[in-house]
Amino acid sequence: MKSMVKMIKNLSSMFNPKAVCVIGASRKPGKIGHEILKNLINYGFGGKIYPINPEAREILGLKAYPTVKSTPTKPDLAVVALPAVYVSEAIEECGRKGVKAVAVISSGFKEVGNARAEGQIVNLSKKYRMRLLGPNIFGVFYAPSKLNATFGPPNVLPGRIAFITQSGALGIALMGWTISEEVGLSAIVSLGNKSDVDDADLLEFFSQDPNTEVIVIYMEGINDGKEFMKAAKKTVMTKPIIVIKAGRSERGARAILSHTGALAGSDAVYDAAFKQCGVIRTSTTTEAFDLARLFAGQPLPDGDNTVIITNGGGMGIMAVDACKDSGVTLMDIPKDLAAKFRKNSGMPTFGSTVNPIDMTGQIYEAGYSGAIKTALSDPRVNSLIILYCQTAVTDPKMIARAIIKTLKENGAKKPVVTSLVGGEECRVGIRELNRAGIPSYSEPQRAVFVIGAMHEYARYLRKRKK
Amino acid sequence: MKSMVKMIKNLSSMFNPKAVCVIGASRKPGKIGHEILKNLINYGFGGKIYPINPEAREILGLKAYPTVKSTPTKPDLAVVALPAVYVSEAIEECGRKGVKAVAVISSGFKEVGNARAEGQIVNLSKKYRMRLLGPNIFGVFYAPSKLNATFGPPNVLPGRIAFITQSGALGIALMGWTISEEVGLSAIVSLGNKSDVDDADLLEFFSQDPNTEVIVIYMEGINDGKEFMKAAKKTVMTKPIIVIKAGRSERGARAILSHTGALAGSDAVYDAAFKQCGVIRTSTTTEAFDLARLFAGQPLPDGDNTVIITNGGGMGIMAVDACKDSGVTLMDIPKDLAAKFRKNSGMPTFGSTVNPIDMTGQIYEAGYSGAIKTALSDPRVNSLIILYCQTAVTDPKMIARAIIKTLKENGAKKPVVTSLVGGEECRVGIRELNRAGIPSYSEPQRAVFVIGAMHEYARYLRKRKK
Repeated sequence: MKSMVKMIKNLSSMFNPKAVCVIGASRKPGKIGHEILKNLINYGFGGKIYPINPEAREILGLKAYPTVKSTPTKPDLAVVALPAVYVSEAIEECGRKGVKAVAVISSGFKEVGNARAEGQIVNLSKKYRMRLLGPNIFGVFYAPSKLNATFGPPNVLPGRIAFITQSGALGIALMGWTISEEVGLSAIVSLGNKSDVDDADLLEFFSQDPNTEVIVIYMEGINDGKEFMKAAKKTVMTKPIIVIKAGRSERGARAILSHTGALAGSDAVYDAAFKQCGVIRTSTTTEAFDLARLFAGQPLPDGDNTVIITNGGGMGIMAVDACKDSGVTLMDIPKDLAAKFRKNSGMPTFGSTVNPIDMTGQIYEAGYSGAIKTALSDPRVNSLIILYCQTAVTDPKMIARAIIKTLKENGAKKPVVTSLVGGEECRVGIRELNRAGIPSYSEPQRAVFVIGAMHEYARYLRKRKK
Repeated sequence: MKSMVKMIKNLSSMFNPKAVCVIGASRKPGKIGHEILKNLINYGFGGKIYPINPEAREILGLKAYPTVKSTPTKPDLAVVALPAVYVSEAIEECGRKGVKAVAVISSGFKEVGNARAEGQIVNLSKKYRMRLLGPNIFGVFYAPSKLNATFGPPNVLPGRIAFITQSGALGIALMGWTISEEVGLSAIVSLGNKSDVDDADLLEFFSQDPNTEVIVIYMEGINDGKEFMKAAKKTVMTKPIIVIKAGRSERGARAILSHTGALAGSDAVYDAAFKQCGVIRTSTTTEAFDLARLFAGQPLPDGDNTVIITNGGGMGIMAVDACKDSGVTLMDIPKDLAAKFRKNSGMPTFGSTVNPIDMTGQIYEAGYSGAIKTALSDPRVNSLIILYCQTAVTDPKMIARAIIKTLKENGAKKPVVTSLVGGEECRVGIRELNRAGIPSYSEPQRAVFVIGAMHEYARYLRKRKK
């Protein structure tokens, strides 16, 4: 049965619908059926929007329809926000109308032990060859079609990271987090009970999606491990997959069981599977998005040699320690290159070129610019970590701008990450760097972690491509 | 020789001087001798300030003196901001005047291979029984006496965390970071080359200091391991010590050698020594200050049982995973207590009381308040982790305020940490909680990490006190 459903690739109708109906659209602010409709309208969806409500003539300025049947054109996507008992009837109606995908927001299914009701809506969607997202989800967002069919925050930033989440509450919370952290997203998909559409389906879609460069998944468990591995193995050849797999601990796995009723499975099995497929695993959502930002903004390295440039010895040493933890290969700087770093940065004689290239606290923008150009122009250097400690005589904003300018003028063939440690002005500098697509973090260890993970991914790809 | 110097406890003159002179005070903004004087004046130091400059009559509105000899009263503390070659002469002059402590900002000593010059100033300070801080430092800050004798940021927030740093650049950068993160400090001491005053001396001072509750040290190496261990072992019985020891990796240790000329020593030795003394070691400065904030704001737990309260299953599971990593004992909730959690929080039937207590996304302020009261009033619960995922129907600020109010009204006999995940409103909530002394973090793993480290410290103390 599953394979038949798999054949019906109506997922693109879900992300790029010409018309969307909201079944259970409500006039009452605060109601889920109201908030989804409001987000759809306000985010600027370009297609038709049909609120379905038998008791309303108009909701939020849009003409309402009593049934799906009565809409003037066929909706490709139906968002269902009804109490669980009414859902199967709505799905049946969608099927008859020719809807291609339904996103069932409603909860009250398998997650509360109601497997029978869930089976029923799955069977109905199969009968009509529709794709079913959910149930028990907060919706779906896709930036390219300006589709915000969620009851999460209205103002998600468009970008090139697709985010898939099994947890609804965490997903909505992270939507808000990405906004305040200025992380741009191409898509957000709430998977909920995964009764039909699952991670593997979405990987297949996003691997083909020109708007997505990297995929982040918050995962508690997978139903079909083989399908996932097959899809992942194919996807990673063009786009990195980053997974936050919860339930690492035995107790965490038990909590998953009581949360979504899913079997988390042995963590060691997941770990091995991820490694085999080249899927990158992180422990925290911050790590996942830190890394996604790097993949979305910077190219892959051609080799393993990393150079650290710093104006502070202590910060350099902490980064070096982190390099060991994160599997970063610090380049042994050849004599000719050391001389160039010294000359081009204008560092004082007590500066060091051992890697970290410690230019000392006496250098300014020109020092950074000179050192960065040196690293970029030398073919033996494959990636660059730029560190900056706020000093009494330099302005973090000016340093950030010098880094941006130098990288812009000297091509971006190698991945570069940065970390600025200091006060409020550093936050501004970090924000400017991130906006320019140069990942920047408030802590050197975060910069080292991401570059290490990227190098590991690049090594995996080189091996597979052999 | 060392022990004789040790006997001379003039450190309190350094932190609580009646008069301070700045040797090398300058009229020129941007110059170190100008910035230190400006910080001293602007931070509101209540004692006398004497700028020493043979060519100036007045600097920043203060009468300047040509020599230390010519000041009307004896300065207890002299801050020396002169080129290295003039420092020994200045120290000699201080000694003759009866100065008790000198902070030598100047660089150009052992860190650049000039051990002879450093030996000379150490000998001079010993001759006159003065304590010598530095050289190669950015100064000293002590909140209770409103002493900001640094060239770092002017507006450090007063608090109960003492911060000792061997790295100057990192130290200044972190001063700024603590301001933008609203971390309050009792003291900041830049140790530089540690020619005389070292970590052990400061531990002795801060262990007696009623204004300090917890000590954070950024350390690259120690000269006298035995002295440090002796002081640390004594100090930890009343105040926790948190150390960021850089140079964990072999390459990091080599970088230290070229940074400060210090031998980092074997990392395993440090690790064992820290464990034996009950010193808490962290890898990053964020971890260190996260933890310091907890110690400064919350009491120690009486036992090992931790309870997690959450409104989001996914966030709860990630926290449970982190509990394993951080050695947190999740309490097995007895039936009677489970029933109380259920009743007092008003969670829906599909909520869970297995720990994490998952109240689900359907609860509001009252749910948090009820669950918190339940945990606080049960003697079997020793510490509490409160998690919140921003939902469409709750306001993070209101949740934060409900937590603050409930904790205020129900005593604070158990440590509580919180984590709020979501958008901008969560940042506001986190800030309010932190200001109320309830540590709050943007990520559940950070909350779990700190409570784990606190439990470990409490276990260490119980063992030692037996």
